[in-house]
Amino acid sequence: MATSHPKGLATRQRLVDSMLALIQLQGYHGTGLNTVLARSGAPKGSLYFHFPEGKTELGIAAVGLAGDQFGELIGKATAAATSPDGVVDVLVAELKGILETSDYQAGCPVSSVALDAGSENEPLREACSQVYEAWISAVSGYMSTFGIREEQARPLSTSMICLVEGSLILSRAHKSTQPLEAAASTLKTLFQTALDTQVREAGE
Amino acid sequence: MATSHPKGLATRQRLVDSMLALIQLQGYHGTGLNTVLARSGAPKGSLYFHFPEGKTELGIAAVGLAGDQFGELIGKATAAATSPDGVVDVLVAELKGILETSDYQAGCPVSSVALDAGSENEPLREACSQVYEAWISAVSGYMSTFGIREEQARPLSTSMICLVEGSLILSRAHKSTQPLEAAASTLKTLFQTALDTQVREAGE
Repeated sequence: MATSHPKGLATRQRLVDSMLALIQLQGYHGTGLNTVLARSGAPKGSLYFHFPEGKTELGIAAVGLAGDQFGELIGKATAAATSPDGVVDVLVAELKGILETSDYQAGCPVSSVALDAGSENEPLREACSQVYEAWISAVSGYMSTFGIREEQARPLSTSMICLVEGSLILSRAHKSTQPLEAAASTLKTLFQTALDTQVREAGE
Repeated sequence: MATSHPKGLATRQRLVDSMLALIQLQGYHGTGLNTVLARSGAPKGSLYFHFPEGKTELGIAAVGLAGDQFGELIGKATAAATSPDGVVDVLVAELKGILETSDYQAGCPVSSVALDAGSENEPLREACSQVYEAWISAVSGYMSTFGIREEQARPLSTSMICLVEGSLILSRAHKSTQPLEAAASTLKTLFQTALDTQVREAGE
């Protein structure tokens, strides 16, 4: 199988990387396959060789890659940080970097795809849903290490991911990191409130 | 001036209404002017008569209309409700209705435009920014009626709008109102925490 050949895998990876970078800047609808090919430097034939289903399949791979990348970041941040505030600081610094280095042109590629293609393309919508789910589980799992109960941790983690996604959109619209910074402060408040509730309940 | 003629105004309004409805379903890039014309039933010439700058100008009017509509809803909810929880319930019920009646095809048109066109179209980006700003001010103004200080109310209101916007995206991606419901619960927690802090500070 050619896809298991190192060179084939490298080409495939370049296509997915290029698709992800372009979605992040221009959205799913705004990204044409010719632009992906040009950016990746891959030969035209390689696109349908690696992604016989075309743009949808490539989009799903890009969404999955975005999910893995931010998921790894959550994993590293929660493993390294000494407090929930520390985790928030690490993740928000990363997102701030994405906004600022792109002059607010780049945001979360998963939200872009969810809004752009989510209402007309079921496989893409499901890919976005799975990525959100993985992030929510990662945050929820971290909360459980503080003894926060599952039934509280799940909706709270969901809100935290919603808050971060929304703050990226407002930051881009305002061309300012102020919404992201407001979100960071709120994330810390929410985590602290959950810890307080949990301590209070344990003491009752 | 023809635009001040009742019939001209009605045609203009139909164009803006149609643009808004289509953006909400298909995004800014996904919405073609021919589809807007077809939906509105307005004659082709009326589009460039009322919107000489074309799609951008019509998009700005649609974003402004979305801003006014949800702004009015915030105004009515805060005027009628007897508690912050009541305000959250009214607004979330409205958003839930939009998601469910459209089978999760419709979301917030402002976020769609911000993500779709915000990085390439400055006037549209600014229109989105102004709408978010108006909503944040409305929520912040409501908080001030509870004695919550401006420097606390502003970032918190910003986070609340971010949270709602993100929850609409995740709800569409999951085809479930669960993220919106999680956001509603978190909005109530945030408001209560701000009130508690304010009471504590007042007592010190």
